Amino acid sequence: MSAALEYEALTVESLPKRLSDVAALTSSVGPDSTFWQVQEVGDGNLNLVFVVSGPEGTVIVKQALPYVRLVGDSWPLPLYRAFYEYHALTRQAARAPGAVPEVLHFDESQALIVMEFLAPHVILRRKLIAGEQVAGLADFLGKFCAQTAFRGSELSMKSADKKADVALFAGNVEIPAITEGLVFTDPYFDAEMNNHTEGLDPVVAQLRGDVGLKVRVQQALQRFASNTQTMLHGDLHSGSIMSTQADSRVIDPEFVQYGPIGFDIGMLCANFLMAYFSQPAHRGDDLEAYQAWILSVITDTCAGFDAAFRALWKNERTGILYPASLFEYQGHDSAPACDAMLAEIWRDAWTFCGIEMHRRCLSLAHNADFEEIEDIPTRARLEARNLMMGAALVHQAETLSDVSMVCAMAQDFNRKDIL
Amino acid sequence: MSAALEYEALTVESLPKRLSDVAALTSSVGPDSTFWQVQEVGDGNLNLVFVVSGPEGTVIVKQALPYVRLVGDSWPLPLYRAFYEYHALTRQAARAPGAVPEVLHFDESQALIVMEFLAPHVILRRKLIAGEQVAGLADFLGKFCAQTAFRGSELSMKSADKKADVALFAGNVEIPAITEGLVFTDPYFDAEMNNHTEGLDPVVAQLRGDVGLKVRVQQALQRFASNTQTMLHGDLHSGSIMSTQADSRVIDPEFVQYGPIGFDIGMLCANFLMAYFSQPAHRGDDLEAYQAWILSVITDTCAGFDAAFRALWKNERTGILYPASLFEYQGHDSAPACDAMLAEIWRDAWTFCGIEMHRRCLSLAHNADFEEIEDIPTRARLEARNLMMGAALVHQAETLSDVSMVCAMAQDFNRKDIL
Repeated sequence: MSAALEYEALTVESLPKRLSDVAALTSSVGPDSTFWQVQEVGDGNLNLVFVVSGPEGTVIVKQALPYVRLVGDSWPLPLYRAFYEYHALTRQAARAPGAVPEVLHFDESQALIVMEFLAPHVILRRKLIAGEQVAGLADFLGKFCAQTAFRGSELSMKSADKKADVALFAGNVEIPAITEGLVFTDPYFDAEMNNHTEGLDPVVAQLRGDVGLKVRVQQALQRFASNTQTMLHGDLHSGSIMSTQADSRVIDPEFVQYGPIGFDIGMLCANFLMAYFSQPAHRGDDLEAYQAWILSVITDTCAGFDAAFRALWKNERTGILYPASLFEYQGHDSAPACDAMLAEIWRDAWTFCGIEMHRRCLSLAHNADFEEIEDIPTRARLEARNLMMGAALVHQAETLSDVSMVCAMAQDFNRKDIL
Repeated sequence: MSAALEYEALTVESLPKRLSDVAALTSSVGPDSTFWQVQEVGDGNLNLVFVVSGPEGTVIVKQALPYVRLVGDSWPLPLYRAFYEYHALTRQAARAPGAVPEVLHFDESQALIVMEFLAPHVILRRKLIAGEQVAGLADFLGKFCAQTAFRGSELSMKSADKKADVALFAGNVEIPAITEGLVFTDPYFDAEMNNHTEGLDPVVAQLRGDVGLKVRVQQALQRFASNTQTMLHGDLHSGSIMSTQADSRVIDPEFVQYGPIGFDIGMLCANFLMAYFSQPAHRGDDLEAYQAWILSVITDTCAGFDAAFRALWKNERTGILYPASLFEYQGHDSAPACDAMLAEIWRDAWTFCGIEMHRRCLSLAHNADFEEIEDIPTRARLEARNLMMGAALVHQAETLSDVSMVCAMAQDFNRKDIL
C-alpha cells in the first residue's frame, strides 16, 4: 500500500490484500496475507480496530474513521488524529517505558497504526464492572501519570524541545475540542446531544443553578485549553486501560495535547469513583470488599503518583524550572517547591475529576459502569451520588490535601440518599 | 532587494541603494533613494534602527542583528525574531487599533521591517527620568493591555485560530528564553552576567536566602513558560513605549509569545514603580508632585485595564470560555466569573511586577532610571527600596486586591531606610 493512496476505510475483507506488503505485518503475522485472519473489534466511537492473526503472531491494526461512530457521519472528524496518536505513543513509550503498546507501523495517509496485540488483556472497565481485581494496577497507573507528566514538562525537557512539541500537538484541534465541549460545557446547560437518566432532573437543575460551580469549571477549562504544562494522554479512563490479572497498559492517546498535569490523573480517579458508585448495582455479597478495593486503587494510584513525581523531581530535574542553582547549590532544600507544585496539581486533578464525574452522566458519552444498570431508579440513585460528589470535589478542590479525604468523601456519598 | 538574498546587516551608507526599489520606501520617503537621508538611532540591544527621511516623508527601518549588542557577538540570536515581531505588530494593530506603528513592509530574509516613523514621540523612559508628564498615558496603556489580552485569548478567539497562533509563536524560542533566564532565574543566584550596585550585597543575600520567594518566582516562571492565555507583547516597559505630551504608542514586540495575561501589565507597572523609586535622584522641588503623578498613572492604568476588560467581557465574549449558554442564557450574571478571572490576572501581574523589579537591578539589563544615578550610595539606597518592595509584591500577590494597596506599599517603601 503506497502512502500516496487516498484514504479508504479498511474492512475485514480488504485488509489482507491492502496491507499484504507492509513489513510490520508480514514479519509479525505471516508473509502470506491469504493466511491472515481478521476480526473487527472496535467498540469505541472514533476508529476501526482489527485483530490480525496468522501463523507467526497477532497484531492490532487501528484506523481512524472520518466521523464519530456514535452519531454517524453527521459529526466529521479529521483523520490527522492518527498522526497525533502515533506521536503520542512514541513519546509515552520513551517517557514511561513498557506502559503502552509498541508501534510497529504508521501510515499517515491511511490514518493507520499497526501495533502490538495485547493478550490476554481486556478493557479495565469490563473488569471493574465484573468485579475483578488487577494486581499492581495502582502502582502502574501512578507511575505512568507521574512519568509522562514530569518528563513531558519543562521540569525535564529542554525549553526548545517543549515548545516544538507544543507547536506540533497544537495542530490536534478537533479532538481536544470534543473535550472542551462535551466535558467542560455541555453538562452545565441544555446542550443538544445531552442525555441523562430519568429522575435526575432535580440534581441536574441544582448543578446548573450553581454559579460558583460553573465558574470553577470554566476556570478549569481555561487551564485545560491554555496551560501547556505537559503532554497529556487526554482521555485516560478505564476504557483506555487494558489489563490482565497482573499486567496493565494504557492505550488510545488520540486526545493527546499539552495541558495541565492534573488532568490525566484527575480523569482517571473520576472513572474509578464512578466504578465505585456503580458497584451496588453490579455486586452481591462482595460489594463492600470490592468497593474497598477500588478505593485502595485510588489511594495507591495517588500515592504512587506522588512518590514517582518526588523521585523524578530529585533525580531528573534538568529543565528550566526550579533549577538546582536556585535551591540545592545554595544549600536550600527544594522540597517546599515540590510540595507547592504537587498541591497545585492535586487542586487541578480533583477539579477535573469532579467535572468528568458530571459529564459521564449528563453529556453525550456515558460510562458503561452506570449505563449497564438496567433498573432506572437504581441507576438514577447511584448517579445522583456520583454527581453530587463531583460538585463537592470541584468546590473543595483546594482543600483536599490528601487522597484519604477524597476516599472518605466517597464513602460518605455512597451512603447518601440524594433522590 | 530580492527576498532570496542572503542576510546582510544594513549600514547608513548601504541602506539607500539596497532598499531603493522597495515600494514602501519609494512611496513614503521619495522615489529617488539618492535623496534619502539615513540615521542610525538604535539604542536597544538587539537591532539596527534607521530613520530614513526624504522629500515625501520619513520611515523607520528596523533590522534584527544576529547577536545581542550589549555583549557583542558572543551571544548569537536568531534573525527569525523579526518574523515574530512582524506578526505581533499586525495582531496588535488588529486587536488594539492605533496602538502600534503601522507596518509598511516586511522582508523575512533580511529580518527587516519598514514601519511608520513616530514624531515627535520619544521613549517614555526618557520622559520619566526628565520628569515630564504624558496626558492620556494610563488610559492608553490600560486599554492596550486589556484589548490585546482579551482579544488574543480563548475568551474571544476561535479555539482553532488560537491553537494555530500558539503553534506559530512557539517557534520564537531564543527570545523568550532570555526572559526565562535573565528575569526569572539569574537574579536569584550568582549568575555569570549579573551585576548590582555596590552596597546592595545584604539585600541580594536576603532575596537569595528567601526560599519561599524563589518558589513563588519559579511558579511564575512555569506560568510564563506554559500558560498560553493570550498573545503577550513580552517586553512592555517604559523603553517600549513612545510618547509625546499627549499621545503614546507601543513598539518592539519581538519578545512576543503566548503567555499569562498578567505578564504585560505587571512588567509595565514594575517599570513605573522603578521610575517612582528612582525619582529622589532625578527631581528637585517637584519630587512629590511627580512621584504622585507616577502613582496616578499606575492607578489609572490598572483601573483602565479593569474597565476595558470588563467591557470586552460583556460585549465580545465569543470564545469557548465562560459561554453565555452557561450564564446569561440561564439568567445567571457572569460577573462573578469575570471577578475571579481578574483576581487571578492581578495575582499574576503583581508577581511578575515584583520579579521585574528584581531583575532590573540584579541581572544583566538594568534600567536607565537607576543606572543614570551617578552617586552610588544614593543609587543603592533607592534600589534597595525597589528590591524589597519587589519581594513584598511577590509574597503578597494574592492579597493585593486593589491597586491602591500597591501604591500605598510604594509610598511606604519610599520612606524606608533599608541599607
